[in-house]
Amino acid sequence: MSRHVIDVSLYLVLDPDLCGGLDGMVETARLAAQHGATVVQLRAPNWKKRQWLTCAQQLKTVLAPLNVPLIINDHVDVALAVDADGVHVGQSDLPVQVVRALLGPNKIVGLSTNNLGNVTELLSPEIAASIDYIGVGPVYPTTTKKDASPVLSHDEMAAMFASCTARGVPAVAIGGIKLGTAAPLMAAGANGVAVISAICGQSDVPQACRDLLREIKPAQ
Amino acid sequence: MSRHVIDVSLYLVLDPDLCGGLDGMVETARLAAQHGATVVQLRAPNWKKRQWLTCAQQLKTVLAPLNVPLIINDHVDVALAVDADGVHVGQSDLPVQVVRALLGPNKIVGLSTNNLGNVTELLSPEIAASIDYIGVGPVYPTTTKKDASPVLSHDEMAAMFASCTARGVPAVAIGGIKLGTAAPLMAAGANGVAVISAICGQSDVPQACRDLLREIKPAQ
Repeated sequence: MSRHVIDVSLYLVLDPDLCGGLDGMVETARLAAQHGATVVQLRAPNWKKRQWLTCAQQLKTVLAPLNVPLIINDHVDVALAVDADGVHVGQSDLPVQVVRALLGPNKIVGLSTNNLGNVTELLSPEIAASIDYIGVGPVYPTTTKKDASPVLSHDEMAAMFASCTARGVPAVAIGGIKLGTAAPLMAAGANGVAVISAICGQSDVPQACRDLLREIKPAQ
Repeated sequence: MSRHVIDVSLYLVLDPDLCGGLDGMVETARLAAQHGATVVQLRAPNWKKRQWLTCAQQLKTVLAPLNVPLIINDHVDVALAVDADGVHVGQSDLPVQVVRALLGPNKIVGLSTNNLGNVTELLSPEIAASIDYIGVGPVYPTTTKKDASPVLSHDEMAAMFASCTARGVPAVAIGGIKLGTAAPLMAAGANGVAVISAICGQSDVPQACRDLLREIKPAQ
């Protein structure tokens, strides 16, 4: 399988609480996608699947005309049900080979990693062959992910970005990224940044996107 | 689609806490299936999917040679990944039509219902056409399901069993069923009983199954 080309420059992960529920998530996604977000991920660990399905359907309606891929966190069944563009999994979710087998070759599969051991594992051919991008973090302390791993040091982070680059896997930095902290991550080797609270719950989502992109784009 | 014939006489729902974790669940399932349980459902609402997958794979290895179907609660993706026999969903999970579409015609789909309104809804042709059995409850107070609905009255229960029978959908009673309370449910029109704590965590699982079957079988 050849890797799908995915622009991870500004990767928005939706948060139900910060967005004020389902309607707010859809509106945040629409505004962000219109103003430069390149990927949107639905993540709602406390939701039941009926709600996931409803939200994913609405997000797809909003994002598809804008050509911004919709990625579903964890739940491959929800992704299949709405024909989403892909699935993102972490180290405790379904293995990426299983996700790839369920989704088929034409969808995006992303994987979170949080330490150098994971990146070494990532370099195994069967895992690398199953994924289209990798999330590296947490790069800063975060409050939106309750079970986050310890924050990576700058050297760990740079080593992980270098490993991903060597393998040809785009790397997106994640964890506590705010305006002003995106540029150093791009300089350290990230292909993009994933944000939650830097967009979700912001009073001016278009402006938040523009400000982040100004930091990200010159660095690419 | 014609409905699959499924024997719901003694339907075991596994509980991670009562069974003492994954190994205990697999051993409980094996003993129960060897001593008369007719269906085993994996249900672990607090688990991440990597653990679901591992447990489902081990359960399938144990149950398939005994010809006891393995049903996965909620997670269609886990069921697809291990080629389980079916999926059970509740009113907040993926709709049964979506589950049926994802699983295809050859798998078992079960639905939980908890009030007469649900049964009226069940009688809609598109829902009835998607399911192979229905779970009716809670018939007694339960401590193993944290978000359980109010307990059904005897009349509500009997009316729901009658609706299911009229529609040709097997009905399994669920919720707080212990030794001594199965027979009246069968007499009220159930096709079988689903149990958690009447088997999970029992010191003698084979004896618990035999005792329950003695109550269930003469009533069928």
